[in-house]
Amino acid sequence: MADSSLDGVAELDLDRGSRRGYPEAIYCEGKTPEQVRAIARRLAEAYASGETSGTALFTRASVEHAAAVVAELPDALHDEMARLVVWPPEPPTPTGELVVILCAGTSDLPVAQEAAVTARHLGRPVELVVDVGVAGIHRVLARRELIDRAGALVVVAGMDGALASVVAGLARAPVVAVPTSVGYGAAFGGIAPLLTMLNACAPGVGVVNIDNGYGGGHLAAQIAAR
Amino acid sequence: MADSSLDGVAELDLDRGSRRGYPEAIYCEGKTPEQVRAIARRLAEAYASGETSGTALFTRASVEHAAAVVAELPDALHDEMARLVVWPPEPPTPTGELVVILCAGTSDLPVAQEAAVTARHLGRPVELVVDVGVAGIHRVLARRELIDRAGALVVVAGMDGALASVVAGLARAPVVAVPTSVGYGAAFGGIAPLLTMLNACAPGVGVVNIDNGYGGGHLAAQIAAR
Amino acid sequence: MADSSLDGVAELDLDRGSRRGYPEAIYCEGKTPEQVRAIARRLAEAYASGETSGTALFTRASVEHAAAVVAELPDALHDEMARLVVWPPEPPTPTGELVVILCAGTSDLPVAQEAAVTARHLGRPVELVVDVGVAGIHRVLARRELIDRAGALVVVAGMDGALASVVAGLARAPVVAVPTSVGYGAAFGGIAPLLTMLNACAPGVGVVNIDNGYGGGHLAAQIAAR
Amino acid sequence: MADSSLDGVAELDLDRGSRRGYPEAIYCEGKTPEQVRAIARRLAEAYASGETSGTALFTRASVEHAAAVVAELPDALHDEMARLVVWPPEPPTPTGELVVILCAGTSDLPVAQEAAVTARHLGRPVELVVDVGVAGIHRVLARRELIDRAGALVVVAGMDGALASVVAGLARAPVVAVPTSVGYGAAFGGIAPLLTMLNACAPGVGVVNIDNGYGGGHLAAQIAAR
Amino acid sequence: MADSSLDGVAELDLDRGSRRGYPEAIYCEGKTPEQVRAIARRLAEAYASGETSGTALFTRASVEHAAAVVAELPDALHDEMARLVVWPPEPPTPTGELVVILCAGTSDLPVAQEAAVTARHLGRPVELVVDVGVAGIHRVLARRELIDRAGALVVVAGMDGALASVVAGLARAPVVAVPTSVGYGAAFGGIAPLLTMLNACAPGVGVVNIDNGYGGGHLAAQIAAR
Amino acid sequence: MADSSLDGVAELDLDRGSRRGYPEAIYCEGKTPEQVRAIARRLAEAYASGETSGTALFTRASVEHAAAVVAELPDALHDEMARLVVWPPEPPTPTGELVVILCAGTSDLPVAQEAAVTARHLGRPVELVVDVGVAGIHRVLARRELIDRAGALVVVAGMDGALASVVAGLARAPVVAVPTSVGYGAAFGGIAPLLTMLNACAPGVGVVNIDNGYGGGHLAAQIAAR
Amino acid sequence: MADSSLDGVAELDLDRGSRRGYPEAIYCEGKTPEQVRAIARRLAEAYASGETSGTALFTRASVEHAAAVVAELPDALHDEMARLVVWPPEPPTPTGELVVILCAGTSDLPVAQEAAVTARHLGRPVELVVDVGVAGIHRVLARRELIDRAGALVVVAGMDGALASVVAGLARAPVVAVPTSVGYGAAFGGIAPLLTMLNACAPGVGVVNIDNGYGGGHLAAQIAAR
Amino acid sequence: MADSSLDGVAELDLDRGSRRGYPEAIYCEGKTPEQVRAIARRLAEAYASGETSGTALFTRASVEHAAAVVAELPDALHDEMARLVVWPPEPPTPTGELVVILCAGTSDLPVAQEAAVTARHLGRPVELVVDVGVAGIHRVLARRELIDRAGALVVVAGMDGALASVVAGLARAPVVAVPTSVGYGAAFGGIAPLLTMLNACAPGVGVVNIDNGYGGGHLAAQIAAR
Repeated sequence: MADSSLDGVAELDLDRGSRRGYPEAIYCEGKTPEQVRAIARRLAEAYASGETSGTALFTRASVEHAAAVVAELPDALHDEMARLVVWPPEPPTPTGELVVILCAGTSDLPVAQEAAVTARHLGRPVELVVDVGVAGIHRVLARRELIDRAGALVVVAGMDGALASVVAGLARAPVVAVPTSVGYGAAFGGIAPLLTMLNACAPGVGVVNIDNGYGGGHLAAQIAAR
Repeated sequence: MADSSLDGVAELDLDRGSRRGYPEAIYCEGKTPEQVRAIARRLAEAYASGETSGTALFTRASVEHAAAVVAELPDALHDEMARLVVWPPEPPTPTGELVVILCAGTSDLPVAQEAAVTARHLGRPVELVVDVGVAGIHRVLARRELIDRAGALVVVAGMDGALASVVAGLARAPVVAVPTSVGYGAAFGGIAPLLTMLNACAPGVGVVNIDNGYGGGHLAAQIAAR
Repeated sequence: MADSSLDGVAELDLDRGSRRGYPEAIYCEGKTPEQVRAIARRLAEAYASGETSGTALFTRASVEHAAAVVAELPDALHDEMARLVVWPPEPPTPTGELVVILCAGTSDLPVAQEAAVTARHLGRPVELVVDVGVAGIHRVLARRELIDRAGALVVVAGMDGALASVVAGLARAPVVAVPTSVGYGAAFGGIAPLLTMLNACAPGVGVVNIDNGYGGGHLAAQIAAR
Repeated sequence: MADSSLDGVAELDLDRGSRRGYPEAIYCEGKTPEQVRAIARRLAEAYASGETSGTALFTRASVEHAAAVVAELPDALHDEMARLVVWPPEPPTPTGELVVILCAGTSDLPVAQEAAVTARHLGRPVELVVDVGVAGIHRVLARRELIDRAGALVVVAGMDGALASVVAGLARAPVVAVPTSVGYGAAFGGIAPLLTMLNACAPGVGVVNIDNGYGGGHLAAQIAAR
Repeated sequence: MADSSLDGVAELDLDRGSRRGYPEAIYCEGKTPEQVRAIARRLAEAYASGETSGTALFTRASVEHAAAVVAELPDALHDEMARLVVWPPEPPTPTGELVVILCAGTSDLPVAQEAAVTARHLGRPVELVVDVGVAGIHRVLARRELIDRAGALVVVAGMDGALASVVAGLARAPVVAVPTSVGYGAAFGGIAPLLTMLNACAPGVGVVNIDNGYGGGHLAAQIAAR
Repeated sequence: MADSSLDGVAELDLDRGSRRGYPEAIYCEGKTPEQVRAIARRLAEAYASGETSGTALFTRASVEHAAAVVAELPDALHDEMARLVVWPPEPPTPTGELVVILCAGTSDLPVAQEAAVTARHLGRPVELVVDVGVAGIHRVLARRELIDRAGALVVVAGMDGALASVVAGLARAPVVAVPTSVGYGAAFGGIAPLLTMLNACAPGVGVVNIDNGYGGGHLAAQIAAR
Repeated sequence: MADSSLDGVAELDLDRGSRRGYPEAIYCEGKTPEQVRAIARRLAEAYASGETSGTALFTRASVEHAAAVVAELPDALHDEMARLVVWPPEPPTPTGELVVILCAGTSDLPVAQEAAVTARHLGRPVELVVDVGVAGIHRVLARRELIDRAGALVVVAGMDGALASVVAGLARAPVVAVPTSVGYGAAFGGIAPLLTMLNACAPGVGVVNIDNGYGGGHLAAQIAAR
Repeated sequence: MADSSLDGVAELDLDRGSRRGYPEAIYCEGKTPEQVRAIARRLAEAYASGETSGTALFTRASVEHAAAVVAELPDALHDEMARLVVWPPEPPTPTGELVVILCAGTSDLPVAQEAAVTARHLGRPVELVVDVGVAGIHRVLARRELIDRAGALVVVAGMDGALASVVAGLARAPVVAVPTSVGYGAAFGGIAPLLTMLNACAPGVGVVNIDNGYGGGHLAAQIAAR
């Protein structure tokens, strides 16, 4: 059992790499910086002792969380827009098929960036395209060649979330849809695009949680793995 | 005052034609066929006496409601798919701009038909196009010329409701969006397309109630009146 | 293709004016001031080079967003109450029919003002009337002459949102209803007036998103264009 | 203790008349006709023995429930539209102030009738007016004299529920608002008018449950008691 | 017409006192202190000129709003807990029946206090009892004599909102129920007690909006007027 | 492994008795009578071969489901009101503490009966009291002695669900609260009492699913086991 | 353009096979049997003329819909449990990786079967395992070898929907989660498992619509294609 | 009557200890520090005069609330993470069965700690295990011996809330489930795990309010009392 107790605070799942083949992820929201730092220290020790290898992602990291990680893992990469801290800082050499991330508007960019960083650190080649909302459908159509090259697509959109349906109608590869909380009142913090995506009239769309760029990038990287 | 009491059952608003310029509408759901027949009789009398002129629409009419109307207004038109009974049966000669009705899928057709009949009997020229969902975006794009000719558009869609955003991004004319209750579980009886349409990322979309083809056709006819 | 890339941040739709006949709008919420400034700079260049002409609206602009725009487009108009920045600052000479904006209460005024500025900069003559809630129905009735003159009406209301039904029952012109998030607990951030307006018992009402004054003004300007 | 056991099926609250001054009410929905009949028999015995006096109301009674009551209380009054069975069949001589019931549309009539029968059997004079929706606001205004005479008003409305706000803005007496489940999709079985009424912009409105004509008539009768 | 324009900001309804018999109320939330001050100034002028008489209530007043009112109406009463500013500061001599306000917990006190101040300034005698939640049912039962004396009751409760049902089962007088937003997560900002109160198994309960102490006190004062 | 395959239809968990100490339960809703009969046959074989012993409960059983079970287990007990089929038909000799089931109204009786049968067949002594809603609080108080004797209480209530709070305020033993779908519109199929119970102002209440009498009886039997 | 008009009823997207590489699907709910038959006839002609090749799926087909299809395509396969009609009846020779479908309970079987048939007719090898809910976690763990062999997994579950999280924590392959509408009241027609799956604490889960076995099987087949 | 008035602010229920056998609890949220201090003073006097004995818990206490309590009860224990202030500071000597608290993730720890402190001060032995989410199911299975020893279990989980189902499937003792508001958008502040837990496919789960660690610990302590 390679689980690793942290004095009643957390129990790392260091087997996860071998069991599922993917990095350890630490969800920072709701944790104190002290708790996050203790986890980073435990990871540093585990890597040092050879107990584990591979990547760790700290998601939903505030500036304070990031500082706590860097105090223990000094070369960790902090992507502030994506609210991610990644260690080691360099992504692995890309393998598998291309992950294409389509972001409906600039306001959705932080979530799209979280997906892009995640997919890259899971080892996939990634291309990110911004501001291709369906209000100007020609912008989407102009990306058809890129869509055709993808092994997995991530569509990040708030408001009406309609981009997922349009892309799924064009693509051969599976679409991972990430609704965002961007929008006016009746977007209801992301419920509107969430429902749009769940009801996409084209098949081939799998939906993840609102604003969950990490989850979207992870699933796309798994799909494009082979 | 041309209001017309019906023995504690209903009070017709016969001034409406002159006040608002549009037909009397009788919402049948929740009324007994006897009540609907009494209303039809009152209308027949009012037309006979010259108290009023112009069209009457019986909406959400079951087969029983329709029979009750026809018993009093024998030449009334019953469009079963649209659940409408209209009298007089012939629409007026079309005036104003073209109303284009775009229907995402065949399952949405009854609502689209209700909109089409309503707009025609309010005096507008109407064209209805079926099965132009965004899952095959080329179907929508193939209608660009028709979209450009419209003075008002009605988009009828269930499921993801994404058609409204795409059309509004293409059109110069206002779009009236009618969500339908067509779809799987998380369409929630039309909530999903309703929210999509309220959150359309392109401006120029006004939304009416779920499955309210009558309301959609009415509003479009008003917009295209001039 | 007149789309204009902004280094992975945004892609302006400069064709929009010719395609749809309406101004470019930039939704600022969720964008950094730096991103907004980059967009303003790109617009300035496009206008300078003759790539585009016509109006640009920056919606949901904070004070910081506004400063960023003004840094690039110094004579832009910042309407703080409406949270709008508009360029060029002068609206075009009014054409088309009158847009009448009825605002139920003073607390709804920022949204109504957003609608008014938008409609004016889309080129319509506009009149704005404040504090005509249905709790004092004589205030609404006192505006009948104005209502009759309108080519399109915008009703802005929170709480019970009942003004939309009453106005639609009086008006010949289409009503654009804008629910606001004003009100006590069970207004649920605008859901209560949103539902009221979707269920308006008078036909002729098209609803836009909660607090979406921009959308309401835009749709009314389109309706009153001819 | 005048509670009266019914073999593990129900326990009548025969003190209620003296304690609260109002009739016993038996909610029939979810009870078998046999259970309802057993309750009717127990009531018949209690009246016969002088244990209690005064009225009993069987609410939400199906035709089968009604037959079960009549089998034990043969002269009971069954109002099918209101789904009420009342015993004794004659209301008491009216006392207290006038209860005015305003019903927005004919489809709301069953609920309004339930309120009217309830208030009459609680001993109040009652007037019921049908089809005074706000889409034709002159219909409401035409009732101002009646509204002024009321000691309590009941407003019964589905769809937008806007009638409650308008009436409360006109009336000196308290308004009891009863939302109904009448309407298109986004009325959501009465949620729309329920929210409208809770958010009435005029004070003086107390709301009861959706379609609860019994509750509305009861509360109005209490208010108008003195 | 005694309506009084405020330069496009608000339109006071000075007839309201004579029309409905109750004070003018100004809802402050969403208004700027400047707007509130302008309204207070207009009121001061109207009183000075004899255009109106009687009480004015400024509800949902922040400290800044209160200061703005006091700047124009120096002797106005500011009840900070109730978020009310009242002018004139002295309530009228009490007439009508007793209004009893029952408050489930101390955390509900601000809303209960808002109801109490409102009812007093509408001219009713008021008694307020705090901390009588149903978790200790003997506390409620100990108030039976007071409950029997009431002409109207106001029940203010968050969390389970069960107090309304229990009190209505004991009382002869109507109960006005005011749900509050007090409570743990699944109270959902007052939805839980709102629903409890709408579903009260005892008749005689009218519900007002969440946290709407003003509305609750107003309705109770109307009921107890005679 | 004592799991027992059923040709791709179901896999019985025959170890459950020894693992958790409680009976096997088969949820019938959504299963065909043929599938239920196959399960009953497999159980009959397992009991015959000594693979398992102890009770089996078929929950949510329609009349058709019940017939299918009885075809294989002829002496099984079918409680139609509770929609339960139990085998063997005799409950075990009671052990543990008393389970008291309090049912707010007669319409809640099917759910209360389901709880009672379940708890009895899990081996507990059970008492069921009907029609003790809080609208007549003296009915609840009259049961104080019984409440004091309980080792676990089950409160079954629809509408306002307030009984759970009142009982928890009186009882020393834990309360299992079962909301029912009984009630008018805004009970929303049991959401109202569900929320009331989750927000009970007295601690000591654990809530189970709407109409889940089986779950309520099961949990109470576990609590009262010792 | 190989779109094929059907007299204003539907427009087949016969290019879809070449564009997206997947079969045409016809959603039958809301269509009349006559409309479905017309579509089947058009398909038969298109296949006959060589306009298209490959599979067609009629989803959500009632018995009447199925008969309408078979009238035109006599050898079509009707899977009644899955509510699917497939033509041609034989699935293609399996290619790609294994799709493993895990079904939490027997009541979820129709949805799981719809996923299985869909994936098979998209050309994947499929294994379906029934009744592996997390209440007996050893049943899931007993399938680890099968889970390890999958190229894509489909988890079909109602009620708590917890199976998706557990499987995703064990699997290397992506998980497609299909919530079902099976369960007691607070499952809310599938909302409960839908939310559980969207909130799966293990990454690698993509969610489709409630009861959408077709969508789940389609997405899994796409993922496992290579 | 040992109720103790606090000048219209609160009424302590000092009989509660004898009546229900559990400590007094003061919910601090929504109370001012002054109100909380007055309550603490009243408690100090009651203890001094022998009017009451035993523990008092101040729940949802901010730092300011805690300071107010300590000013009157200087040796009170303030657990900041749990937001609890307890007096007297030492828990009683443990009696009854073991309460085992399982916490899915570190972010859920504050709620779990609130449950642990509560159960300890109600007199039960407690063990708290952190970070045993179902994403690594082996972590849960590794605790089977501890689960078997429990007299009551508390499962604290946000996001998917799936831990409750898994634990209930393993345990003989009742499970108290506490959903937390931890998670991404579609966790909806705890609604997702709340629904999961109410729909647990294993019986034996009683659910308390979102983030209500106090309620969870209290109920578990009652269950494990004997």
